[in-house]
Parts: sequence; C-alpha cells; structure tokens
Amino acid sequence: MKKIYFNELENYFEKEVELQGFVDNIRDLQYVQFVILRDGTDKVQVTIEKNEENASLVETISNLPLESTVKMQGLLKESPKVKLRGMEFLPTSIEVLSRSKEELPIDIKKKDAALRETRLDYRFLDLRREDNHLFFQCETLFEHALREYCIKHGFMEIHTPKIAAGAAESGAEVFKIDYFGEEACLSQSPQFYKQMAMAAGFNKVFEIGPAFRAENSHTSYHATEINMADIEISWISSLDEVMDMEEAWLKYAISKVNETYGEKIKELFGVELVDTTIAIPRVTFEEAKEILKEKCHFVGERAEDFERQEEKLLCEYAKKEYGSDFIFVTNFPFAARPFYHMLEENGVTKSYDLLFRGVEITTGAQREHRVDKLIDQMKEKQIDPASLEFYSDFFRYGCPPHGGFAIGIARVMMQLFEIDNIREATFIYRGPTRLKP
Amino acid sequence: MKKIYFNELENYFEKEVELQGFVDNIRDLQYVQFVILRDGTDKVQVTIEKNEENASLVETISNLPLESTVKMQGLLKESPKVKLRGMEFLPTSIEVLSRSKEELPIDIKKKDAALRETRLDYRFLDLRREDNHLFFQCETLFEHALREYCIKHGFMEIHTPKIAAGAAESGAEVFKIDYFGEEACLSQSPQFYKQMAMAAGFNKVFEIGPAFRAENSHTSYHATEINMADIEISWISSLDEVMDMEEAWLKYAISKVNETYGEKIKELFGVELVDTTIAIPRVTFEEAKEILKEKCHFVGERAEDFERQEEKLLCEYAKKEYGSDFIFVTNFPFAARPFYHMLEENGVTKSYDLLFRGVEITTGAQREHRVDKLIDQMKEKQIDPASLEFYSDFFRYGCPPHGGFAIGIARVMMQLFEIDNIREATFIYRGPTRLKP
Repeated sequence: MKKIYFNELENYFEKEVELQGFVDNIRDLQYVQFVILRDGTDKVQVTIEKNEENASLVETISNLPLESTVKMQGLLKESPKVKLRGMEFLPTSIEVLSRSKEELPIDIKKKDAALRETRLDYRFLDLRREDNHLFFQCETLFEHALREYCIKHGFMEIHTPKIAAGAAESGAEVFKIDYFGEEACLSQSPQFYKQMAMAAGFNKVFEIGPAFRAENSHTSYHATEINMADIEISWISSLDEVMDMEEAWLKYAISKVNETYGEKIKELFGVELVDTTIAIPRVTFEEAKEILKEKCHFVGERAEDFERQEEKLLCEYAKKEYGSDFIFVTNFPFAARPFYHMLEENGVTKSYDLLFRGVEITTGAQREHRVDKLIDQMKEKQIDPASLEFYSDFFRYGCPPHGGFAIGIARVMMQLFEIDNIREATFIYRGPTRLKP
Repeated sequence: MKKIYFNELENYFEKEVELQGFVDNIRDLQYVQFVILRDGTDKVQVTIEKNEENASLVETISNLPLESTVKMQGLLKESPKVKLRGMEFLPTSIEVLSRSKEELPIDIKKKDAALRETRLDYRFLDLRREDNHLFFQCETLFEHALREYCIKHGFMEIHTPKIAAGAAESGAEVFKIDYFGEEACLSQSPQFYKQMAMAAGFNKVFEIGPAFRAENSHTSYHATEINMADIEISWISSLDEVMDMEEAWLKYAISKVNETYGEKIKELFGVELVDTTIAIPRVTFEEAKEILKEKCHFVGERAEDFERQEEKLLCEYAKKEYGSDFIFVTNFPFAARPFYHMLEENGVTKSYDLLFRGVEITTGAQREHRVDKLIDQMKEKQIDPASLEFYSDFFRYGCPPHGGFAIGIARVMMQLFEIDNIREATFIYRGPTRLKP
C-alpha cells in the first residue's frame, strides 16, 4: 500500500487507511490513549479508547518508547473537537516497524538542552527537529531555483573533477590524496575547469558541488568541505554583466523560498527573508574605504583589503542608506586578488565582493583571457608559469572574454536565516576536529 | 552591450548589432571574404566585400587564425541567397578578442583524426565539437529533469560528506586522504548518509554528486571519479515501490531530453532514444537464470551473480520479448549483495539490478532497518559490528522502513547515446592513468 503523507490526510476523511510514522508523543489516560504520529510532512492524532476490543492496541502503545516507528490500519475521522488539525485516527491494528531505545542521547524537542557538539554527534536525531526539516526544505528549494534560473537562461551544467593533479589556487592549503602512488589533491574550487568550459565554447556554465579547504580554521563560518555554486559566463563586455547576473539569480532563488516558506520561516526562525525588490548598491573599493572613514569613522588596518569589521560596517551602511541587506564592492586592488582577475588600465582589478548581512558571500571577477597578460600576472604574483601550463593552454587557441563567481550555499543560507554557525546550516559538517558522523 | 546569441539572430534583421564568437571558418576569395562565426548556440555568415572602405577589416581577417574570438559591429541582413540560415552580417568594425595559434594540436572538426588519448589531453578543444556540445546540453537537461521529478514529488536534496572517516562499503578500494594527520578517505557512495537522512525523518531524499573508486580498472565503463544520482525513500512496503519510483523517474528525464533534443540527437549521433511508453519487465534472479539457460542457451560461471555476457543476453531477451531496452532483475542471492540489503523469508535479498542495453546501471534495494537483524547480517558477512557502530546507531532510535538506489549519470548517458566509452561521456575523465587536465 502506498504511503499516505500526513499533509494529505484531509483527502481521506471517513476512509479506512494505513498510516506510517514516528511516535511523536503519547498521552496515556485512564480511559483513552492519545498518540501523536509524525512523518516529516505533518502530525496527526491517534485515539485509542481503552475498551476490550482495543486491548492489544492499548498494550502495544503502553510499552512503546517515543520515536519508535509504527504502521497502523484504521479509520480517519473528521473531528472538529480535536485541536490538532480537526481530525483523529481510530486504529484497528498497530505494527511496530522499529522500536526506539527508551532514552535518547539528546532531547530532540529542545534544541538548547544539549551542547552543539553533542547534537552534532547525534546529527541524525538533531535533524528530526521541525526547524531543521524546514531549513533543509528551504535549502532544497533555494538550490533548485538557482539551477532553474540557469536552465531557463541557457546554461550548461558541468561536473568538474574533485581529484586534481595540483592545487587549484596558489598558496592555499589542500588535502593530499594518494592516487595510485602519485600525489594528487582535493579540488578547492572548480575555477580552472569552469574557465576551461569557456575555452571549450560552452557559453554559460554552472556547477553545484563540493569544494575542499584544508584550513585549520575553527570559526563559525569555515568548514573543510563546503557545497559551492559556481557560475561562469562568456562574451561579457563588463564586470557589471557578471554582477547583474548574480543579483538576478540570487533574487530569483530567494523569492522562490520566500513565496513557499516565508510564513513558516517567520514562525520557526523569527526572521524575514530579504526584500528582493531593492537594487543592490554598488560601490568601488576606493569609495568603500572613503565611506568607512567618513561615515563610519573607521579605518581598517589593511589598505588593500577589508577586515571583518569593515564588512560589517559597510553592510550597516547599505541597510541604512539603501534599505539593502546586500552591497557590491568592486575594483579591489590586485594585491588582494588572485593572478587571473583582469586588470583595469589603472591597475585595479575587474573584480567584486558581494557582502550580505555583514559577511562576504561571493568573490566575482572578469578573468584575464589573453594569455600574454595572464602570464605577466602570474609572474607578478611569483607563480612559475610552467607550473600552470595546462591552464594557460586554455587561452592559446581562442577564448571568449568571460567572468564568473561562486557562493557557498551554507554560508548564504545561514545569513538568510540568521543562523550563527555554519555547523547548524550543513547536513553533516566537516571541520579540522570533526570527521564524524 | 549585452551578448546576442546566434540562435536569436532572426529577431535582429536590418538592425545594427554587435556579434561575438569564434571564427569557425574563413573563405578568402578575390572580391569578398566570407567568415563563419560560431558561439555555441549557432553559426552565422559574415560577408566582407573587398573595397576601399573595408580595407582594414579585410586585413584583420586575412591574418586571423581560425578559432580566434572576435567582436564585430555592423548590420544584420536577411539574405535568402545565403545557404546558412538565410542571413548575413556586414561588419563595420572588427576587434580580435583572443588570437588563436595557427596550428591546433587536434583537428576539432574531425573527431577521428586524433587518438582518443590525445583528444582527452586537449579536452577543451575536443569539447568544441558540435556533438559534444549537444551531449552536454542533453546531460544538463537529463539531470535537471531528474531533480525536477524529485522536487515535484516532495524530495529533499542532501549533500553528504565526501571526506569520510572509514570506507563506506566494506571491501572495496578507497582513496586515502591525510586529514590533519588523521587518516580519512574519499566517499565511495552516499549510502550510509542517505540512510541517515531516513533515520532523521527526511521522507525522501536525493543527491547528485561525486563518488570515488580507487579501482585499478581500465575498462570502457569505469572511472575513478563518477557523478552519481542517489535516491532513498522511506515508508515503503515493498521493493516494487522502489522500482516503480526509479522507472517513473528515468522515463520522465529521458522523455524530456527526447522532446527537446530527439531530432538533433538522431542527426548527430544516429540514435533514437528509448521508447518510454513500454513498461520495464521485472524478473527474479532465479527466473533470469532460467531464461538464460532455456532461451539463450547460456549458463554463466557464477551461480550467485551475473557475468557481463549474461547481462547482455538478458537485455537482448527483454528487447525481443517486450520491446524494452531495460529489464529489472530482482531478488539476488545474499552472497552477491552488501550486508544492509533486507532479506526475504527465504533468504534472498529484496534487491534488484536494472540493466540497460546490456549494462547494469543500478543496484537498488530495500534496506534492513531493524538493528538486530542488521548486526546479524554484518556478522554473516564477516564485518565487525564495532567498526560500523556510527551506522548501526541510526537504527536504534526508531527508523522508517526504506529503500533506494543509485545511477552513474555518465554510464546511463553513454548507454542512451550508444557511446562506446565513458571517457567520451564525462566532462573531464579520471582514471588510474589519467589525472589531467
């Protein structure tokens, strides 16, 4: 018999049906047992009168630990007197599908009753909470909308290799793999390969997949394995086209989540998602430093990049001045950027960061597609061009001008939901001291 | 100025526009130059009369290697006399965006002019061919349709960790990683984690992501890194529900590809995709062995599994008897299956293989969700239950009955397109002797 999901029960009033679910709660009273079943779509009340006919059902329930899973046959009745959805289920048979231990290692009803690390140890129980179900439903829709936008706009999806011969970006730390006796590493980013797709004449590509960073960081924003959405588009004439694309793409996905789950998010997380009707302000790096000094009375320690506090202040400024939760900062100094970002004539890069509620969520750029300049820029960054010949080859046989960007899905989601730690926004978190479950 | 894609040019007749593309071909005649531009959506003819006004344009083209990229301003005219799309472009300016070397290392017009391994070395050029563009457009749509089906049916998307503490499935070979001094490995499959999602009460989940196999196999069907689509669903009452889901899901995606690209596939690959109206026949392993013996006069060497020849013969049988390119074989002996497949009362597994045009593309099963039986089955397979405690824990606090399956996307795509080697069906192939590009 096909599973009837609890959010569809309104279609089955006065019918004999079969229900399957987790035992969410039991109230065992003198003359009646009330059992609440849960299946991830909704809950329903089961009512068992303590009479002779029901003796074996009553006994089953009396001995059943919460969180066990059961299958029941019986009658679904519309019952306006029942507070939970105005319905109740009167079972004629109960089968225990899987019996839970009496004691759970964490309280799945009260998030704060256990330490975060303990909850992560028992992530499969932690995820049973309603807020976590909602969060991953929203993430599912968010990602799907990101892809849908791409499909509607003629993108091709690529899957770049995660096993790489060398480090994708110079300097950063990588995980090493033993590859049949050769040394290989885990990809930190699809950067080079999405650019390869441009050289292959794929006009626009996207990828959503894992990226790996062997950084020994223990902040609330870092993970060693993240889920990244990467975009690269050809035939651009300016950096603005890349930002336009990202802005439209993010707003499309956020709107979709808001339409479907906005009310529920407000209820369970107490937050409003972003107002997607507001144009995201764009300021240059130079202007941003000026704003920080003049309007925020703050001068950062680094002249060529931002520190966290500056990102925070710029977002507060954007919110106050433009009502925007986002702000683009463009034209970073070359010193703060990788070798492959294209330069303006005045030496600043055609690149940007997108800041969102105090945190950088994207670095984007137009890429240098002219091989001579690319090699000059490698040298300027003290990179031996011979070490990246496979990459510079992409630009020797004709290549479109192109640009792109990437976002870490969990980081955007945690900012959207105002969650304070990426560990809570990841299905299974990986960090320097966490390799399990 | 925003890029105008060549497949939209019909909207710009008699307009001044800007075109960007690869130089696909040049015919330099006495009084005129014909240049064919290509941009991944289509081609267009550029006509340059050799007159005084055009002197600098003519010179630019005379010295331009094929495959260079250019930007042109000019007038698009409807010209019925032009064979290519009945239009021509008359440029007033040409800018060379990126100059190709004169000689390409492979002929990108003739696939067979270079060895496969050479083509793979220069995959970014190999991928410029029209058939490869079409293939990855189809893969994009195929995957999107697989996800769309899931979204429509209430699935949640998960991203399971690719860095794992131990091997996901016993016995098989894994890539080892140095994880901050600890030994970890690359995930061979999301199996345990998608089951974890079931224990977390996620009713139905999917994941499309990489899986890694350190097998030193050099066949046309194996790769060390593959893109897998994984499905797991809860509250099933029988194995048939799992097969029903897979059948509907695959047919949905194949139909979508067929609707959009069927004609073009026939033209470039000479194949018809699958007839999705035919119900996929289902036979038990025992029946299959009987069919092989009686109808195909073939007895395989292994009583408890199939060899390749048997899979091929069963597919020929399904095609002849039912007109089906697919066949489900169910209820494999436990000896041929992993410990977590649920057993029938008679000891055979509630599992299946899906065969497609001679090749196995899926293993699916109902999983054992009762922890006592699960541990018995580990022992029967000589697996120390202590080594998998994190996994068996998933089943100690209530778990729905569940089942699922996985497909390798490239393997299904190569069977669909009747491509003879997985290297051709993968954006960038990884094998024991191929770690580049």
